[in-house]
Amino acid sequence: MDAKQKRVMTQNPLNAEPPIEDLRSWITPNRSFFNRNQGAIPEDMIDINEWRLTVTGEVNKQLDFTFPELLEMPKVTVINTLECSGNGRSLFKEKAPGNPWTIGGVGNVVWGGVWLKDILMMAGLNSHSRHVAFEGFGKPVGGSGVDFIRSIPIEKALQSTLLAYEMNGEPLPNEHGYPMRAIPLGWYGANSVKWLCKIVVMDKPYEGYFMDKAYRIFQKGQDPKTGEVVKDIKVKSIITKPLMNETVQKGNVLILGMAYAGENDISKVEISFDDGKSWHEAEFISPKIQYAWVQWRYLWTANSEGQIKILSRATDVLGNVQPFEGNYNAHGYCNNGILDHAVTVHVR
Amino acid sequence: MDAKQKRVMTQNPLNAEPPIEDLRSWITPNRSFFNRNQGAIPEDMIDINEWRLTVTGEVNKQLDFTFPELLEMPKVTVINTLECSGNGRSLFKEKAPGNPWTIGGVGNVVWGGVWLKDILMMAGLNSHSRHVAFEGFGKPVGGSGVDFIRSIPIEKALQSTLLAYEMNGEPLPNEHGYPMRAIPLGWYGANSVKWLCKIVVMDKPYEGYFMDKAYRIFQKGQDPKTGEVVKDIKVKSIITKPLMNETVQKGNVLILGMAYAGENDISKVEISFDDGKSWHEAEFISPKIQYAWVQWRYLWTANSEGQIKILSRATDVLGNVQPFEGNYNAHGYCNNGILDHAVTVHVR
Repeated sequence: MDAKQKRVMTQNPLNAEPPIEDLRSWITPNRSFFNRNQGAIPEDMIDINEWRLTVTGEVNKQLDFTFPELLEMPKVTVINTLECSGNGRSLFKEKAPGNPWTIGGVGNVVWGGVWLKDILMMAGLNSHSRHVAFEGFGKPVGGSGVDFIRSIPIEKALQSTLLAYEMNGEPLPNEHGYPMRAIPLGWYGANSVKWLCKIVVMDKPYEGYFMDKAYRIFQKGQDPKTGEVVKDIKVKSIITKPLMNETVQKGNVLILGMAYAGENDISKVEISFDDGKSWHEAEFISPKIQYAWVQWRYLWTANSEGQIKILSRATDVLGNVQPFEGNYNAHGYCNNGILDHAVTVHVR
Repeated sequence: MDAKQKRVMTQNPLNAEPPIEDLRSWITPNRSFFNRNQGAIPEDMIDINEWRLTVTGEVNKQLDFTFPELLEMPKVTVINTLECSGNGRSLFKEKAPGNPWTIGGVGNVVWGGVWLKDILMMAGLNSHSRHVAFEGFGKPVGGSGVDFIRSIPIEKALQSTLLAYEMNGEPLPNEHGYPMRAIPLGWYGANSVKWLCKIVVMDKPYEGYFMDKAYRIFQKGQDPKTGEVVKDIKVKSIITKPLMNETVQKGNVLILGMAYAGENDISKVEISFDDGKSWHEAEFISPKIQYAWVQWRYLWTANSEGQIKILSRATDVLGNVQPFEGNYNAHGYCNNGILDHAVTVHVR
């Protein structure tokens, strides 16, 4: 039961994914949650007495919240799967620059905090309040040299964006953004700014490196800015058991995994052992609630010895289904390809 | 944000409840979960390589499971509120013997494990399979001198009883029953035998101290055995904010709490400031799923200064409602009285 170590891709900034075994738990423990950083984690924890959350820009009244003031506000608790948009990058057939995530850049967490909507209502909105930008204390290292700032449309900010101060019932750990991070529910992690200290309401999207150059889905040679911004998580399933290249005994083999589709619920997960010619429906075995991944299982009777490729395919309630191969793009974002996530096992 | 210490009622065996602030989280962190023991916690953690789960008694075939064999079985994840049947004992008007719990003998946890049903099906049942007894390694200290063994009816065992090896995504901590504990979902903690090692299927309920003398609801002077066995958790609400005797400012005061009803879902929670003459409906602010408590809030406008008693009243979907005063019994079990759980505050 000893925990395996995370696989560290870069140490500074820290980018690391947990072992696949750690993804078998419906709730991902804090220590197993992936680390994705553009910059250094603050060496000293932010002084909670000094910290303020400033709300400014296109609001009727600039506000500064102390941490105790936020704790006094109505608390909400949401189970939300957060995935790094680069997750699965190393599984594309073609290589893309960036951290070589396999499937571990995702986790499912009980977040506690306040609705961004409640904060915005207190500041007051007007007809110029169209986008909401998040600024944190994190300073990017290396290439970009600019602050990590992201904005989201006002609709998302009002409808389903949490400002989280609690992770699985514990105060937000320093490495995950203490004391507060933004969580647009069901969206890729790039939008979940850590060490949040400033919210700027704007009349247009924030312009900057992390909005216009990074986190855009575009093809090589194209202008990044023509590409779609990385927002809501695409429908996807992962196999967490057996592991890649595991040897399994002939007979009953239990296949376990997770499926998620950002803002949408999963309607079914299917398994194939013949490269997608036939599919068998898996069974859901975890609670099934909006924004949280669902755990599934399939009991496979492995009749013959040899090498078998196991595929999983998720469909959401809107009918979105995983593509057979991931849609490659210049930065290798949002890989939800069925074939890219196949698990090969050896039956004997 | 520093965690307050638990309130230790007895050190050996360890019986302790967390500070009320720790009950404000929808998921109760492992370190905040109450400790309830009849005996000593095993000083050395059970050797997982030596440990076996034996299934015996009225089954077609005795089975011994190793821990890896159980991990291979279909895994289920359930969010379940576990409450000590003595929780609230010290809040009865009349004193009862036993640990003086206030409201902290309860917690809500994501449990991972296997269905007891799956285990029983493998062993095979027959017409004599009517009750299922759980034995653990825990040795009671003090008075009783007998093993802590509890049995539940076969219907509950087959329908909704988990054998948990995971607590909030972590291996079950030693103090909470490593490597496995029984969790009849929605039932009081007395049925959740820790350090589980033996399951005995029987044709009648197990007879012993902890079935016949303890954990029975009876009146003083009566034979304990005539009393009802402590089973499913009664409908109840608790107020987690403000705290008892807290001073609050005139104006908007946020009231937070939890409500739970064992196997049943909560339908509403109401608040009263006039000793129950009028009631105001609270709003649910957490996920709401079977067996898990639901978090609620009520925004109170405190108009006048002085001392005010806040009452909360939960109703479940079957129409069960908390009694105004707890139903006192000789051992002080199952206190879900509205008045007993009132919180007095000072408005100024």
